[in-house]
Amino acid sequence: MDSMILELGYALDTFYFLMCTALVMWMAAGFAMLEAGLVRSKNTVEILNKNVLLYGVACTVYLFVGYNIMYPGSPVSSVIPGIDFLLGGDNSVDDVVMGGEDAPYYSNMADFIFQAVFAAATMSIVSGAVAERMRLWPFLVFAVFMVSVIYPVSGYWKWGGGFLDELGFQDFAGSIVVHAAGASAALAAVILVGARKGKYGPNGEVRAIPGANLPMATLGMFILWMGWFGFNGGSELKIANVEEANAVAQIFVNTNAAAAAGAVVAALFARMLFGKTDITMTINGALAGLVSITAEPLLPGAGLAVLIGAVGGIVVVLSVLMLDKLKLDDPVGAISVHGTAGIWGIFAVLLSNPDATFMGQLIGTLVIIAWMFAASMIVLVILNKVMPLRVSEEEEMDGMDIHECGMLAYPEFGPASQASEMHSGGDSGQSPSRVNPVSKAATS
Amino acid sequence: MDSMILELGYALDTFYFLMCTALVMWMAAGFAMLEAGLVRSKNTVEILNKNVLLYGVACTVYLFVGYNIMYPGSPVSSVIPGIDFLLGGDNSVDDVVMGGEDAPYYSNMADFIFQAVFAAATMSIVSGAVAERMRLWPFLVFAVFMVSVIYPVSGYWKWGGGFLDELGFQDFAGSIVVHAAGASAALAAVILVGARKGKYGPNGEVRAIPGANLPMATLGMFILWMGWFGFNGGSELKIANVEEANAVAQIFVNTNAAAAAGAVVAALFARMLFGKTDITMTINGALAGLVSITAEPLLPGAGLAVLIGAVGGIVVVLSVLMLDKLKLDDPVGAISVHGTAGIWGIFAVLLSNPDATFMGQLIGTLVIIAWMFAASMIVLVILNKVMPLRVSEEEEMDGMDIHECGMLAYPEFGPASQASEMHSGGDSGQSPSRVNPVSKAATS
Amino acid sequence: MDSMILELGYALDTFYFLMCTALVMWMAAGFAMLEAGLVRSKNTVEILNKNVLLYGVACTVYLFVGYNIMYPGSPVSSVIPGIDFLLGGDNSVDDVVMGGEDAPYYSNMADFIFQAVFAAATMSIVSGAVAERMRLWPFLVFAVFMVSVIYPVSGYWKWGGGFLDELGFQDFAGSIVVHAAGASAALAAVILVGARKGKYGPNGEVRAIPGANLPMATLGMFILWMGWFGFNGGSELKIANVEEANAVAQIFVNTNAAAAAGAVVAALFARMLFGKTDITMTINGALAGLVSITAEPLLPGAGLAVLIGAVGGIVVVLSVLMLDKLKLDDPVGAISVHGTAGIWGIFAVLLSNPDATFMGQLIGTLVIIAWMFAASMIVLVILNKVMPLRVSEEEEMDGMDIHECGMLAYPEFGPASQASEMHSGGDSGQSPSRVNPVSKAATS
Repeated sequence: MDSMILELGYALDTFYFLMCTALVMWMAAGFAMLEAGLVRSKNTVEILNKNVLLYGVACTVYLFVGYNIMYPGSPVSSVIPGIDFLLGGDNSVDDVVMGGEDAPYYSNMADFIFQAVFAAATMSIVSGAVAERMRLWPFLVFAVFMVSVIYPVSGYWKWGGGFLDELGFQDFAGSIVVHAAGASAALAAVILVGARKGKYGPNGEVRAIPGANLPMATLGMFILWMGWFGFNGGSELKIANVEEANAVAQIFVNTNAAAAAGAVVAALFARMLFGKTDITMTINGALAGLVSITAEPLLPGAGLAVLIGAVGGIVVVLSVLMLDKLKLDDPVGAISVHGTAGIWGIFAVLLSNPDATFMGQLIGTLVIIAWMFAASMIVLVILNKVMPLRVSEEEEMDGMDIHECGMLAYPEFGPASQASEMHSGGDSGQSPSRVNPVSKAATS
Repeated sequence: MDSMILELGYALDTFYFLMCTALVMWMAAGFAMLEAGLVRSKNTVEILNKNVLLYGVACTVYLFVGYNIMYPGSPVSSVIPGIDFLLGGDNSVDDVVMGGEDAPYYSNMADFIFQAVFAAATMSIVSGAVAERMRLWPFLVFAVFMVSVIYPVSGYWKWGGGFLDELGFQDFAGSIVVHAAGASAALAAVILVGARKGKYGPNGEVRAIPGANLPMATLGMFILWMGWFGFNGGSELKIANVEEANAVAQIFVNTNAAAAAGAVVAALFARMLFGKTDITMTINGALAGLVSITAEPLLPGAGLAVLIGAVGGIVVVLSVLMLDKLKLDDPVGAISVHGTAGIWGIFAVLLSNPDATFMGQLIGTLVIIAWMFAASMIVLVILNKVMPLRVSEEEEMDGMDIHECGMLAYPEFGPASQASEMHSGGDSGQSPSRVNPVSKAATS
Repeated sequence: MDSMILELGYALDTFYFLMCTALVMWMAAGFAMLEAGLVRSKNTVEILNKNVLLYGVACTVYLFVGYNIMYPGSPVSSVIPGIDFLLGGDNSVDDVVMGGEDAPYYSNMADFIFQAVFAAATMSIVSGAVAERMRLWPFLVFAVFMVSVIYPVSGYWKWGGGFLDELGFQDFAGSIVVHAAGASAALAAVILVGARKGKYGPNGEVRAIPGANLPMATLGMFILWMGWFGFNGGSELKIANVEEANAVAQIFVNTNAAAAAGAVVAALFARMLFGKTDITMTINGALAGLVSITAEPLLPGAGLAVLIGAVGGIVVVLSVLMLDKLKLDDPVGAISVHGTAGIWGIFAVLLSNPDATFMGQLIGTLVIIAWMFAASMIVLVILNKVMPLRVSEEEEMDGMDIHECGMLAYPEFGPASQASEMHSGGDSGQSPSRVNPVSKAATS
C-alpha cells in the first residue's frame, strides 16, 4: 500500500502540472485577443496569424531543440548548456516508488509541456510590440531562433542550473527569465523596425492610434489573468503535501492580489494624469501587477502582494509615457508591462526573500536582458538582409491584412476606408482590390 | 505513511478548491463580456472599466476587511459579526495530521480566495443593472462599501454561522446569499439612478435598446456557465473521498442540466410570446437555470434539476417583461436573472432537501433581500450627495466612453454617430472632439 | 487506512474527469465563437442561438435517452443496444473499497457528464456546416434525434462494447466516433439544404463569402484547442497512478504538438497555394491537427504526433478546396476538419498502435460514416416535409437574424446594408423594418 501512496502523490502532482499547463496554454489566446483588440482593424488578421503561428512554431521547435538546451542532461559548463537529442522517456513506477528522497514526483512529459507553454509565452510578448509593421514570416523565422536557442540559453543560466542560479539570482516564475526576456527581444525588434507611420509627429508630438476592439483587448487581459494562476501556481512544481498545497494557495492569493491592485492603481493614476480612466491603462496595470509578483509570488503576505502590484501599476503607466517620449513605438505596451514591471518585480523580491541579494538580482537582470537584447538584435539584423522585416509604405497604408493575408478581419464593419482616414490619414481597409485566395485557387 | 495519506487528502482538497477558484475568477470575464455585449457601443469602454475595476476593488477590500467580517474568529453575536485583524496564517502539518475529526482539510488561503471571488461575483451583478448611466468612480466607491461590509454582514448571517444559519435557512451555493443579494443592491441602484433616457416613452411604451455586440454577450454566458462548475462544485468544499467525489460529480451534472433546460425553455417561451427566438432570452434563460439550481445543486436528481432550470427559464422571461412594465430599467436583465430566479431557486430547495422549511427559506430570503436593499440604498443616497451617481444628460447622449474614459470601444466601426441616431435619437460616438489622454499628456 | 487510499484514488480520478468535463463543455463556446466569426453578420445571432440551444438540447436528451442507449446495462446484441431507464445511482464506498480488481474508480455521474459533453460536441460540428441557410428550430429537432438515438447507436458499437469494438476498431478519443460522425451528419444536411445563394457562380466559379469577425473565429479555435486537452486527456479515463499519469501527460504533449504542427503546416501550404496566409486555413489547420491525433493521442512519440498533425494540416486545405469543387458549401470547413482529417487520423493509428489493423480501421470508419450519413439523411428528409429546413429566398437575402431572431448581432456596426451589397449582392442587415419583440410584447 505504501507504494500506492507514492503513486497517488505522483499522479496528483502530474495532474496539477497538466492543469497549470492548460491554463498557461490559454494565455496564448489571451495575448492574441489583447493584441488583436489593440491594433487597427486593417492589421488584425495578421496579428492573429502571428499569435497562432508563433505558438505553433514555439511548441514545435522547443520540443526538438529548445527544451534540450534549457534543461540539458549533461551541460558543457554553467554558461554553455550543451544539448541532448530529443525528449527522453518517462519515469517508471520503480523510479517513483524506490527512488527515496530523490525520486521523481511528476511526469517528465508534464514537465516538458509546462516548459513549452512558457517558451511560447515569451515569444508572445514580442508579437505585440512589433504589431502593425513587422512582416509575418520573418517574425516566425525569428521565433524559430528565439525559442530554439536564444531563450533556452538564458533560461538554462537560471532554471537549468547554470551560473545565474549558482550566483543566487532569485526569479521564481520568471519576471526576468520569461517576461523581461521577451521584452528585451521585443525592444531589439522595435528599434530595428522603427515606429508606425504617423505615430510620432514632426514636432515631437505623440499621436494615439486607437485599438479597434477594446472589449476583445479586455477579454485578452482576463484570459491572461486566469492563465497566470497556472503560470505562477505551476512554478511551485509540487502540490501533494500540506506545505506545498499551502504554498500553491498562497501563490494564488498573491497573484490575484497583485493584479487587482495593479489594475486599480493604474486606473486611478491614469485618471489623475489624464482626467480620463483609460481602459488600456487599467488593462496594462493588471498585467503589470501580474508580472511584478511573478518573481516572488510565494513569500510575500497578501498585503505585501497588494503593494507590489500597486507599484507595478504606477510603473507601467510611467513606462508607457517614457517609451513614447523615446519614440519607441510599442502598440500594446508589451515592453512596459513585461520589461519595466518585470524589473520592478525582480527587485521587489528583496522585500520578502532573505536569500535574494541586491547584487544577485542586479547581475541576473542585466545578464539576461543584455543577452536577450543582443542575441535578438544580431539575428534580426541578419534576417533583415534576407527577408525585410518591415512592410513597405504602401502595405502599411493599406494595412497588412490585405497584403499578407488577403482578407479583412471585419469585412462588414466600417466603412473601413473612412475610419482609417480619420485615424491614420489614408488607406482603404475595404479595398475593392481585395484578393480572394480560395476562389482564385479553386477556379484556376 | 498514515500521515502521508492525510496530507494527500489535504493537498487534493486544496487543489480542487484552487481550480474552482480559477473558474469563479473567470466568471468576472463572463460578466464583463456579457455586459459589454449588451450595452450600446458608446458606453462599452466604461462598462469594461467597471468590470475590471470592481473585481480589483472587491478582491482588495475583501482581503483587508470583508473576509474578516464574514468569517469572524470571535463573533459578537449571531447578528453582529465582529472583526478580526487581517488574514491569519495557514494550517501546519501537525494541525492536519493530528487534528483528528476536526482537522482542517484544506488551506485557509484557498478558502479565502474562493470566498473572495464569490464577493466579486456579487458585485458584478450590480454593474450590469446600472449600465449606461451610473458613473464609474461612484460605482467603485459603492463597491468598496458593498464588498467590505454590506455583503459580508448578510454572508455572515448564513455562511459565517450567524442567525439565519441557526434558523435552518438552506442556501447551498448562494441563490440568495450571493445572487439575490447582488440583485437587491442592483435594484436599489436602479431605482436611484433611474431609467436610461429614451427607454420608456411618454405613453408607457417600452423601447428596446439593442446591445452592440451579441456574440460577445453570448461568449459571456458561456464563460459564466463554465465558471459555475467552480461556483457550485467548489461550494461542496471537499472532494477527497468517495462520497464527496460523488457529490461534486452530481453537482456538475445538475448545474449543467439546469442551465441547459433554462436556455431551451426560455428560448421556446420567447419564441411563443414574440414569434422570434430572442438570443438575449436564450442567454438569460441559461443564466437563470444556473441561478435556480445554485440554492441546492446536490440533492435533486438530474431530472429534477432539469425541471428546476426549466422553470427558471420561464421565470426570467416573465420577470424581464414585468420589470419593464414597472419602468425598472435593467439593460442586461441582471435583477431578473439573479434576483427573481434566485428566489425561485431558494424555494425549489423544498423539493429535495428535507431540512429546508418554507418559513426558513422565506425568512432567510426576506432578511437578506431587505438588508442588501436597505443598506445599499442608504449608502447610495449618501454617496449621491457627494459624487452624483448619474451622468449628465449631455454625457448620456454622447456616451459615457468619451466623457469618462476618453476613448471609443470600436473607433473604426460605425459610423457611430449614424448608428446612435438610429437607435437612441442623437449623439455622436465618433465625436471629432475626442480627447486623447496619452498624446496630450505625452506632449504637454 | 488502506480504504482511505482507495478512496483518495477514486476522488482524484473523479476530479480529473470533472475538470476534463469542464474543458470539453468549454468547447461549446469554441464552436459558437468559431462559427459566429465565420458567418456574415446578418446570420450571426441565429448561429449563436443554434450553438447555445443545441448544447442545451443535447445535454437534456442525452441524459434521458442517449446515454442509456450508448452505454446500456443489458444490450440486446452487439448491434442493437437496448435501453435502460434513466441514470442509475452512484458507487458506494463499499463498491470502491471492497470491489478488488473490478472496483469502480470514478463516479458514474462524472462518467455521464463527460459523455454528455462529447455528444454535444458531435452536434456542434453540424451547426457550422449548415450555417446561414438551415432554419433554427428544424435544426434543433434534428439535434433531438441525433443526440438521443443516431449518435448513441454508433457510439455503442465502439465505446459501448458493440461489434466494432469486438472487431478491433481502434479509436481512442473519437476521430471517427465523434468527429467524422458529426461530419457525416453534416454532409447529409449540406447536401439536403444546398449551397448558400451566390456561393457558386453559373460558370463554376467559387465565391468566397468572408466571415464577419475573424478575431472571434480565432478565439473559437483557441477555446477548442484548450478544450481538447480535456477531450483527449479525459479519454484516458484514469490518472491516479504512475503509468496513467504518464499516459495523460503524453496525451497532453501529443495533442498540443499535433495542433501546433497542423496550424503551421496549413498556413505554409495556404501561403504556397494562394500567395497569402489565409487565417481561416491557419485555424482549420490547428483544428485538423487536433482531430488527426484524436484517434490515438497516447502511443505516438511527440515527433510522430508532430507528423500526424502536419499531414492533417495539408489534408484539411486540400479537402476545403475539393468540397468547393464538388459544390458542397460548408461555411466553416467543418466537414473537412472533422471528417477528412478524422479519416486521416483513424488510419494514422496504424503508425503507432500494434493492435490496429487496416481492415479494422476501414470497416469501423465505413460503418460509422455510412450509419451517421444514412440515418441523418432519413431523419432530415422526413423532417423537411414537416418543417422546411431551408429558409426562404427572401429570408436568406435579408439574413436569418431579422426573420428568425428579430434582432441584429451588431446593430451599430455597418452600414450593414452597404457591406452586404458588396459581399453578397443585396439585402439589408440594418433594415428599418426591424421587429422588436420585447417592446411589442411589453406594450401590447
